[in-house]
Amino acid sequence: MVLVGARTLVTWVDLPEGTGFGIGNLPLGVFLGGGRPGFRHGVRIGDRVLDLFAVTGLPVHATGTLDPFLVAGPGAWRTLREQVTEWLTGVRHRARVEPHLLPIDEVRMCRPIGVPNYVDFYSSKAHAQNVGRLFRPDADPLPPNWRHLPIGYHGRAGTVVVSGTPVVRPCGQLGPPTGGLPPFGPTARLDLEAEVGFVVGAPSEPGERVPVADLAEHVFGACLVNDWSARDLQAWEYQPLGPFLGKSFQTSMSPWVVPLAALGAARVPPPARDTELLPYLRDDGDPWGLDLALEVRINGQLVSRPPFRDMYWTPAQQLAHLTVNGASTLPGELFASGTVSGTSPEEWGSLLELTANGTRPLTLADGSTRTFLEDGDTVSITATAPGPGDSSLGFGEVSGQVLPARA
Amino acid sequence: MVLVGARTLVTWVDLPEGTGFGIGNLPLGVFLGGGRPGFRHGVRIGDRVLDLFAVTGLPVHATGTLDPFLVAGPGAWRTLREQVTEWLTGVRHRARVEPHLLPIDEVRMCRPIGVPNYVDFYSSKAHAQNVGRLFRPDADPLPPNWRHLPIGYHGRAGTVVVSGTPVVRPCGQLGPPTGGLPPFGPTARLDLEAEVGFVVGAPSEPGERVPVADLAEHVFGACLVNDWSARDLQAWEYQPLGPFLGKSFQTSMSPWVVPLAALGAARVPPPARDTELLPYLRDDGDPWGLDLALEVRINGQLVSRPPFRDMYWTPAQQLAHLTVNGASTLPGELFASGTVSGTSPEEWGSLLELTANGTRPLTLADGSTRTFLEDGDTVSITATAPGPGDSSLGFGEVSGQVLPARA
Repeated sequence: MVLVGARTLVTWVDLPEGTGFGIGNLPLGVFLGGGRPGFRHGVRIGDRVLDLFAVTGLPVHATGTLDPFLVAGPGAWRTLREQVTEWLTGVRHRARVEPHLLPIDEVRMCRPIGVPNYVDFYSSKAHAQNVGRLFRPDADPLPPNWRHLPIGYHGRAGTVVVSGTPVVRPCGQLGPPTGGLPPFGPTARLDLEAEVGFVVGAPSEPGERVPVADLAEHVFGACLVNDWSARDLQAWEYQPLGPFLGKSFQTSMSPWVVPLAALGAARVPPPARDTELLPYLRDDGDPWGLDLALEVRINGQLVSRPPFRDMYWTPAQQLAHLTVNGASTLPGELFASGTVSGTSPEEWGSLLELTANGTRPLTLADGSTRTFLEDGDTVSITATAPGPGDSSLGFGEVSGQVLPARA
Repeated sequence: MVLVGARTLVTWVDLPEGTGFGIGNLPLGVFLGGGRPGFRHGVRIGDRVLDLFAVTGLPVHATGTLDPFLVAGPGAWRTLREQVTEWLTGVRHRARVEPHLLPIDEVRMCRPIGVPNYVDFYSSKAHAQNVGRLFRPDADPLPPNWRHLPIGYHGRAGTVVVSGTPVVRPCGQLGPPTGGLPPFGPTARLDLEAEVGFVVGAPSEPGERVPVADLAEHVFGACLVNDWSARDLQAWEYQPLGPFLGKSFQTSMSPWVVPLAALGAARVPPPARDTELLPYLRDDGDPWGLDLALEVRINGQLVSRPPFRDMYWTPAQQLAHLTVNGASTLPGELFASGTVSGTSPEEWGSLLELTANGTRPLTLADGSTRTFLEDGDTVSITATAPGPGDSSLGFGEVSGQVLPARA
């Protein structure tokens, strides 16, 4: 039972105790299987997936990504959400709809979006400071531009994969030459980065700046991202043009995109800023971050609880910055927050930070220790957020197991 | 008349004197118009475009990008090339084929590929040294990693556009704060970068390394690229994660992709390397660069002749590096060389270098001067290469006019 605005909504779907996928969430994804041919768009409710193509008959919901639906914009997103809510709460729809609710175990979730562009930001102040202290101990831990703009860069869009895809330990140049040649081989410093991603649905045109206030006109929703990183490759290659092979082997995203429309109760004021901003980045009106509580696990053992509510730069500021130079955006593109870290060590979102760049091993609940990830490790990142009423929304998870480097 | 292998080929198509699009070239592109509905793949011959869909009847040649054809791989590329050569040389095909040769003026060329990924390298030693001397006058002009790997980064794939698209002067943060806020406005340092791009046709799988020797199994051909750059935005934003808004507003590419199969006579040994390379970057077998002679013009006035033959890192090394960590590639993706600069000042491929970062204005043939680009300027980059026999291949051009910043 969920209170939405003035309405109390009860779904006729049998929900498991404590599900994060109640009637107030309704995330979208893309699946295969469930006895149905081809790609389908689906809505998650409890432990089931509603086959949107089967229910609506609309070909747009039988495509391999959400992009052809998302491009229709906020009006279409709202209409679908209202319809799905009606179908799953009105008992008179049950006979028609229930046959198209598939057990989650019987479908295979796919990457939900086409990712024509992928941008990664660097928006956690605690993370940027932690990194600065590790690598530039004698300087201001924040780069001089950090407080004035949300630093970001383009990642490799084509290697964004869906949760569950194993990550093969990448090989590469591990550092500067030691007697002639740089050392080469599997990374010895494979890391995770716990992030939150935002999915652009309705594109913006070349030359169009998206104002901070207009985020929800373009961004459909949010997901979880693990920006796998090979720290040794990255440290050697990244000057002067930024990360490349240290990140490009794989980036994982969760399969369910939680609509911004579901996240009203999760909005929180962003942290106080200590620096005046240029007008295009100001959010004096109704600024909001999101109170997402992330949890990072290695082989099921909790290693961190990164608080997304502490992020200095909001997604609205990120999109405003991304487009201020006139760059267009495309349906199904992804921009991610950068590593989410809070101020306390138990809130740090990367092993780089949690182990002080590998110098202080982390002890897991089973007594084993880690500096960086080992072959066979499974990393999973989950998140919950306040939902309508006293409900809690789940984001599901982004997970992946580390496989040994190929010979 | 062109000698290909042991054959002398003569086309029945009337070719303009000095065309770079003779029977030995046969580049592919995508066009609209010419009295035909929808997108068509085309082959350029002289001042005409052969409508491949009309001639072959294959739906794959009526798609918006070359990607669905390119994915078929080198065998299909070779077969098409042989067929087109036969059609345009065998007089018995003339009656059937000639109606589908459209005047170039009657079609509109489109971006030929989907660009699911866009990587930009930094492979000219002279360019990297020039930049190093300008920005790090007291250090080794080359970064410590430069001789060991082809430095690269991901650009914004979604803003790669076809030649002829105007470039609107981008706005952004122009530098560090001067009393509180960073200066903001239209870039005062809009630059060009003359580059050569390579188009991946046949993809490589996740985990698959593309050996240096296998370039032609994956790369279909080459084109020209202008990597427009806003130097003030770039200088302020690029630490620590690389270029972002200083580049992401627009990258332009030429509409015709010249097949590697046409560039056999243009192959030249790469410059001598002064540093031993890791095995995955070694090209002792049959290393080759390409003898492309670029020309850069502003409003029709020649400002530079960058020699692509001088590039230190070859496209084969770039692709080997890009995939050594297991990153997959996709049909229709683009990787570019980075600015092409030779050792002499008249061979430098950016205004940054040609004007010593705006401190030494360049005088054009009409007597006007430039530090960086002005509104109204049209930049065009062309290239020619040795073709079969004594022919010369043209790449056409990548051009664009600078429009004023939007209010």
